[in-house]
This record gives sequence, structure tokens and C-alpha cells, in this order.
Amino acid sequence: MGAGEFAAIGRIQELLTARLGVPPPGETWVGDDAAVVQTPGGPLLLAADLVVAGVHADLGLEGLDDLGWKALAVNVSDIAAMGGVPGHALVTVAGPPETDLGLLYSGLVEAARRWRCPIVGGDLSNGPVVTVSVAVTGSLPRGRLPVLRSGAREGDLLFVTGPLGAAAAGLRALRGGSGDLESRALASRHRRPEARVAEGLAAAEGGARAMIDISDGLAADLGHLARASGVGVDLDHVPVAEGATEAEALTGGEDYELLFTSPDAGAVDRSFRMAGLAGPACIGRCTGRAGQLRLGGQPLEAGGWEHEWRWAGD
Amino acid sequence: MGAGEFAAIGRIQELLTARLGVPPPGETWVGDDAAVVQTPGGPLLLAADLVVAGVHADLGLEGLDDLGWKALAVNVSDIAAMGGVPGHALVTVAGPPETDLGLLYSGLVEAARRWRCPIVGGDLSNGPVVTVSVAVTGSLPRGRLPVLRSGAREGDLLFVTGPLGAAAAGLRALRGGSGDLESRALASRHRRPEARVAEGLAAAEGGARAMIDISDGLAADLGHLARASGVGVDLDHVPVAEGATEAEALTGGEDYELLFTSPDAGAVDRSFRMAGLAGPACIGRCTGRAGQLRLGGQPLEAGGWEHEWRWAGD
Repeated sequence: MGAGEFAAIGRIQELLTARLGVPPPGETWVGDDAAVVQTPGGPLLLAADLVVAGVHADLGLEGLDDLGWKALAVNVSDIAAMGGVPGHALVTVAGPPETDLGLLYSGLVEAARRWRCPIVGGDLSNGPVVTVSVAVTGSLPRGRLPVLRSGAREGDLLFVTGPLGAAAAGLRALRGGSGDLESRALASRHRRPEARVAEGLAAAEGGARAMIDISDGLAADLGHLARASGVGVDLDHVPVAEGATEAEALTGGEDYELLFTSPDAGAVDRSFRMAGLAGPACIGRCTGRAGQLRLGGQPLEAGGWEHEWRWAGD
Repeated sequence: MGAGEFAAIGRIQELLTARLGVPPPGETWVGDDAAVVQTPGGPLLLAADLVVAGVHADLGLEGLDDLGWKALAVNVSDIAAMGGVPGHALVTVAGPPETDLGLLYSGLVEAARRWRCPIVGGDLSNGPVVTVSVAVTGSLPRGRLPVLRSGAREGDLLFVTGPLGAAAAGLRALRGGSGDLESRALASRHRRPEARVAEGLAAAEGGARAMIDISDGLAADLGHLARASGVGVDLDHVPVAEGATEAEALTGGEDYELLFTSPDAGAVDRSFRMAGLAGPACIGRCTGRAGQLRLGGQPLEAGGWEHEWRWAGD
């Protein structure tokens, strides 16, 4: 009777394909981190995400400026996960009349400056809760193809750009109200996620064949990548951020590190080194057992958090 | 203490300019119907608008499919008002779990087909009320510049692409519950607004110097165009849609006809005729009295409906 978010997205994809047709060659529509469309000047990346107060952010624990930052950063992260560079942002905001728009936009603008992605338009409306929707354009380095979720092959190595679980541990620290130094550092990983644009470029340069950002949690996003590519995954280990638990690293989500596959560890290492970046962690490899996720030989639950949707007629 | 929507938008514009700088030459950011940014393939148009159930649409009077149609159509209208053609759409939806996403997307998809503007990505989230945010890209015919709000000059003639007030009269008919033929036709003008893409192209081809879509109401949108251009406006008359009142035509809004100025009535007439379109109505002319709007020699209140915002610190 019910349907989760991923099922609902699947139904919407079916409806769109049935009524709007399949994308022309070289384009990717719904289903990846960002869409890829062709323009006279080359491929254009398009991503949109929304952040709802009380759902994605507890305004008792973080500020409207943090919510603004997050709304823009998560879209930049989607562009990064294609191997792209952000271009411009559009921002729509719904909220009650007393919403502190100045505070909200100060966070949006900080993120826009951080990733050189100016806010060029948008809309305002009254509504019962603060809801911020951001759309971001992106481009690829000249001649480069986008890195989709679907390109992983059996034998590819799996990399992640940083240890995981800090955002979930940060939320736990905020809820616990502890003010010590480690807690404050973790909290800022929850409140102000970083989008890994430089890492996404280095991964693409290093021959990444599939990539996704870790927004839903490592296990869930591994599942998305494996399903899209028709591979399985054997993880050796999971790099856990200091102060986080392994469960937070596996299912916490909102870390916005990038997960990618490549057949060539040497090329990956070289391209990160040449970009002045810390090398990504190799955490396992892709197998031919489609859809099977394992950690240390044990089955891994894809899990991860979903919004609830009931689909009429189910 | 309080601040209306237009004042809030002005404050946001100030904040964005102070922190992100002014747009490079050839670009237009916040403040027109759509933003214009430069890409290697030419100018890219970007627009985003949101529709909130209970604010922009009464779901007791119209369906979620109508709300979906409207959310996409109003963005296509913003592209049309620049003299552009829509490209691709991104859609984010917040709503309670019981939201009939199938019905909502059926309206979105109908509009996407109507204007050949496929939905290529987006996001879903739970939230207390249905909130649909759409972002649309657009392009211009090769070699053509966008038609901004700010290009009108003293002596320009003012044109509108159709009679006004039908959407407001349609809402009145829906509220009155009358089921006669005229009421049903008017109601559909409220529920399913048309975006005037062909008319926008013809206006640009006919030498339009300034253009805006009539979303807030003729008086309010005339005010936007006049302020942006530094001109005044003398209206001879207002073309009122059958079944609508003059007040609905002046301040009802949501008609999404295009308002534009041109120095050359003959060129406008020729380009609409060559496009197989009914000629637009000439309703007055621009004057040198900056900001003064008059109808039949009497002052015209800019009026129009605004969302409410309080700006912290005011």
C-alpha cells in the first residue's frame, strides 16, 4: 500500500519516460546526481534539491544561515558527483512572514561565494514552513564526459574521498548539547557540509567510471551505484570519521563525500596528487554479483533514510 | 516594521550584489523575468518559480494536476517574456505522504509536452503542504539579444498580447460554483494558464525593447517595467476579457499575457502576422515622466498582490 521515496521516484521516472520519451543520445535525465543535457556550447549539468525546515534541518539545533548553506551545498555536491564545476544557482523560498530572510540568504551567499556559484534568480512565497529549493547549473572541463552512476564494471576499485559518519555524529552531538571541541567540530560537519568539487574533478581526471555523492548514507548510495551499473560490491572496510560510529559511517548520510570506481589505482593516486589533494581511500571492489553488497564478506543492508509517499492506486 | 514581497526582493538583491558582485557584461541576474548568463554556446536563460497549495492554489477549487501545470507554465512564461524558448525543467516537490504525486506529475508532464520542455531532474521531500518549485532553462534564437524589462524609451508604444482579467474572473467563477459554459471557460483560464512563447518570439522579432509577463496584474507589472526602464506610462484603454471586470483586468494577475514596448507598430504587426498570430493590442505609450502611470489621464495605482515578509532589523 505504501511507497517509499525511492519507489515514488521510480514511478515518476516511469511516468516521465512514458509521456516525455527517452533522452536523446548523450543526455541523462532523472536518475543520476544531476541531469546532462546538450547545448550548442557543450553538455550542461542541471541539479535541483530542496531542504525543508523540520525535515532536513531542526531549527532548534542549527540556524537559518546553516539551512541556506546546506541547500546550496547539496546541489553543488550533485554537480561535483558528475565530475563537473558549478555555474549558477536559482533559489526559491517559501516561509512564514516572520522568516529571517537576511539570515537565510547570508548562508546561501556564503556557499555561493565558497563555490563561485552566484545566485542569479528565484522566487519568494509565503508558506507554513521554511522550504528552500535550489537549482544549479554546471559544466564539464572541455572534452570531458560526465561520470554517471551507471559506468562501474566488475573488477573496478571503489574509492571514497574521506572518512564517513561525521555529519551524523555531529547531529548526535548537537542533540546531546555538549559544547566540547570535538563536538563543535563534528556539529559543523552537520551544519555546513562541504561539496567535493576539486575531488570530483580529480576523480574524473583519474579515470573514474562511476560516481555518486554520499547523501543518503554509504550503504544506500552504494546500492544506487551498484544497481545503476549492474554490479555487486565487496567492501573491505569503511573509513569512520573521528568521533563517529561505524553505523553512522554506513547509514548516517549527509557527509557529501564522493564515492567512485576506477580500474586504475595508480591513475587515481596521480590525479589527486597533481591536484594537491589527499588521496581517496580504497574501500573495496566491484563484483559480478549484481546487486549484492557485502562488507567483510557479510551481507550489507542498503538501508538509508527515505521520505514517505503513498502512491495513489497502490 | 513590515516589508512586502517587492521590498524583500529588493533587500535580497542588495545583499546579493554586495556579497556576489554585479553581473559581468551581457548577463542579467535577479530582477527580470529570467536571468541571462553567458555560456560558450551563447546566452542561457534561467527562471525559477514556486507554487504553494493554499497560497497560489486552492485545492478545493482546482486539482493537483492544475497546480502542476501552473508551476511549469509560469516558468515557461518567464522565458517567453525574455523573447526565449524553453529548454529543460527541474522540479522539486514537498508535500505530505498522502500527496497524489501521480496526479501532480500528470499536470506537470502535460505542460512539459505542451511547451516541449522535458522534466529532466528534481527532488522529493515530505513537508506540511504541497509546494512545487520549478526551474526552467531557455535559449534565444541565434544572434538575438534577450528583451529585458529595462529597455523601454519615451515614445515607445505599449502592447499586450491578449485581453486581461480572465484568470481572476475564472477564480471568481470557481468560487461561485456556477457550471455554465462561460464560467467553465473562464475557470480553465485560471486553472491552466497559457505561456505566450510564440508571441514573445514575435514581439522580439518585431523590435520589442522591453517585455514582462503579466503575473502580478497589469498595473503592478506596468509599474515594474516603467521603474526598470525609467519611463512613465499613459494607457489609452485596457482590453478586458469577456466575462471579466475592468478591475480584474487591471489588478487580477495570473493572465500570463505579455506586455511589451516597441517604437514601431508596423514592424510589430508584420512579425505577428508572419508568425500566424493575432496582432497584439496597442494600449498606450511610454512617457518621460518616470514612474507615473496613468489610465485615460487619471493616476493608476500600481497595486497588485504581494506576499508578506518582515525583514529582521526593520
